[in-house]
Amino acid sequence: MTSPTPGTLYLVPTPLDFGVGAQALERVLPAHTLQQAAGLNHWVAENAKSLRAFLKRVDALAPLCMPLQEMSITELPRAVHKQGDHAGWFDARPLLAAALSGHNVGLVSEAGMPAVADPGSSVVRAAHDLGLPVMPLVGPVSLLLALAASGLNGQHFAFVGYLPQDPAQRQARLRQLEQLALQSGQTQLWIETPYRNAAMLGATLQTLRPGTRLCVAAGLTLETQSVRSMTVAQWRLSPQAPDNHTPAVYALGA
Amino acid sequence: MTSPTPGTLYLVPTPLDFGVGAQALERVLPAHTLQQAAGLNHWVAENAKSLRAFLKRVDALAPLCMPLQEMSITELPRAVHKQGDHAGWFDARPLLAAALSGHNVGLVSEAGMPAVADPGSSVVRAAHDLGLPVMPLVGPVSLLLALAASGLNGQHFAFVGYLPQDPAQRQARLRQLEQLALQSGQTQLWIETPYRNAAMLGATLQTLRPGTRLCVAAGLTLETQSVRSMTVAQWRLSPQAPDNHTPAVYALGA
Repeated sequence: MTSPTPGTLYLVPTPLDFGVGAQALERVLPAHTLQQAAGLNHWVAENAKSLRAFLKRVDALAPLCMPLQEMSITELPRAVHKQGDHAGWFDARPLLAAALSGHNVGLVSEAGMPAVADPGSSVVRAAHDLGLPVMPLVGPVSLLLALAASGLNGQHFAFVGYLPQDPAQRQARLRQLEQLALQSGQTQLWIETPYRNAAMLGATLQTLRPGTRLCVAAGLTLETQSVRSMTVAQWRLSPQAPDNHTPAVYALGA
Repeated sequence: MTSPTPGTLYLVPTPLDFGVGAQALERVLPAHTLQQAAGLNHWVAENAKSLRAFLKRVDALAPLCMPLQEMSITELPRAVHKQGDHAGWFDARPLLAAALSGHNVGLVSEAGMPAVADPGSSVVRAAHDLGLPVMPLVGPVSLLLALAASGLNGQHFAFVGYLPQDPAQRQARLRQLEQLALQSGQTQLWIETPYRNAAMLGATLQTLRPGTRLCVAAGLTLETQSVRSMTVAQWRLSPQAPDNHTPAVYALGA
């Protein structure tokens, strides 16, 4: 008996509206991404409910290959959401059993590209370890839309995740990132949960030097999108933070 | 006399095939991106000839608003291509005169997202300085496709551009990047010109520790796409480099 040709792991990006605005998917997903997503019936998802809502929207543009209820959907365990899954402690190979028996498998996170500023890298690593082909599909990635729209150095940049919540630690970290950016020219990007947008902007304007350039890119790809990029001195004259429901990406540089 | 409402600067991503494979644009560009690109008749481009070739491909899917010959296309100066335009020495505001008189303007680079690992950030900065809205559109970004497909840490990463060409300096830089990645958990990404792919992989396998994970993502979104991610020890057993015509993204991490 020969083993079947293994399936491919597809990395399927999703819109940045978290299912809320019910934005037209053609705004952010190429036709090819929609067709590939519609052809998959085995999934690994950060959240099964969000995946089902996404697939219903896909179905309206590219008919699904199988009724939703019959699809196989495996959720990433809670611990992966909380601690992240990049450190190698979580063995995701059992989640890819279907791929070993020849099925293509889709990986999705809550918004944007799985495994980028989101869980999923353990599943991708497992696919490589099992010798499965990995196929990333094109879609929206908030970090890169923010970087391009910031006017900051896009030839040398770093994404550092979340900053500490403790005010003193956050201030120290902001100083460190500013020093790194000014000395090395490396743009520094980070994210914050929406309800802390005002606190984050406040801390930033209080801490950074007047000549440092700060970009706040909020609601990317949405109707409410706003990208503001200027020096800290200019920000201090009109310090409007994104509202506390809108996801934002922050970036600083020379 | 009142001044006209200023136009918007659109960041228009292009496919990663450099016009060669003549890939279907729907593979990598959402319908919205195609429609927005088709509606622009003022452009700032890294290369005018490549932009015209791209717009001919757009026209087949979304009819252009105006014949190509009548469009206004401004090329970024040569010096910007060579030295990069992020350091603030190049004032791109004159390139946006059309936007000040109310026209929307598109910015494009040779492949992928303008201003990310490509020229263009000076134009974006100028738009912010002039108070113009900046609208990044969704399309392929090789760095992020590579990062997602690598299985490496996507919650903390840096893109460092090109490594030095001098072998001793390149080795020193690789050691430095490896140390940074192993100590801080920050995935390190870089690029190389295709004809140096074999030399780059050779240097990498010679320099890095056996347990370090290396990803080489070549020909992203193309028919020839290949993403290999494994430890340096495993790479040494099958050290195939991408061919010397295929653009590749390199990444290392724990």
